[in-house]
Amino acid sequence: MKTTEFNLLQKTLALQVKSFRALRGLTQEDLAYLADIDRTYVSQIERAVNNPSLQVISRIAAALDVRTVDLLGASAL
Amino acid sequence: MKTTEFNLLQKTLALQVKSFRALRGLTQEDLAYLADIDRTYVSQIERAVNNPSLQVISRIAAALDVRTVDLLGASAL
Repeated sequence: MKTTEFNLLQKTLALQVKSFRALRGLTQEDLAYLADIDRTYVSQIERAVNNPSLQVISRIAAALDVRTVDLLGASAL
Repeated sequence: MKTTEFNLLQKTLALQVKSFRALRGLTQEDLAYLADIDRTYVSQIERAVNNPSLQVISRIAAALDVRTVDLLGASAL
């Protein structure tokens, strides 16, 4: 149950990051540079295979010019 | 700028966890038990001094019976 909840969040985050990144016309490399994180980390987030920290998610949100909550819910798209 | 954004999120999370925990009549120890994390970790989150992972935040949300996004924004209180 808790795992399912987390998996759903991982997948929402993955989809939202991919969608906003495409909307901004950015590559994974561009986003990694803007958020000051490793490109492999962006790839892992978009494949929903890692457990990012709040700080990493907030850096990605800032790089995509959205709120952190917009990356964890589908409301903004 | 990115740090400020993160600090604001840490503080929002701290306030929301404290508020929902009080609303449910739970101690930090109760919440830690329900979320299956260490009590010192709950204390750190409520003091906005750590960088919790998405999984930990989602476990706390499940234990408080709210959505993860409710812990990162003020909308639900």
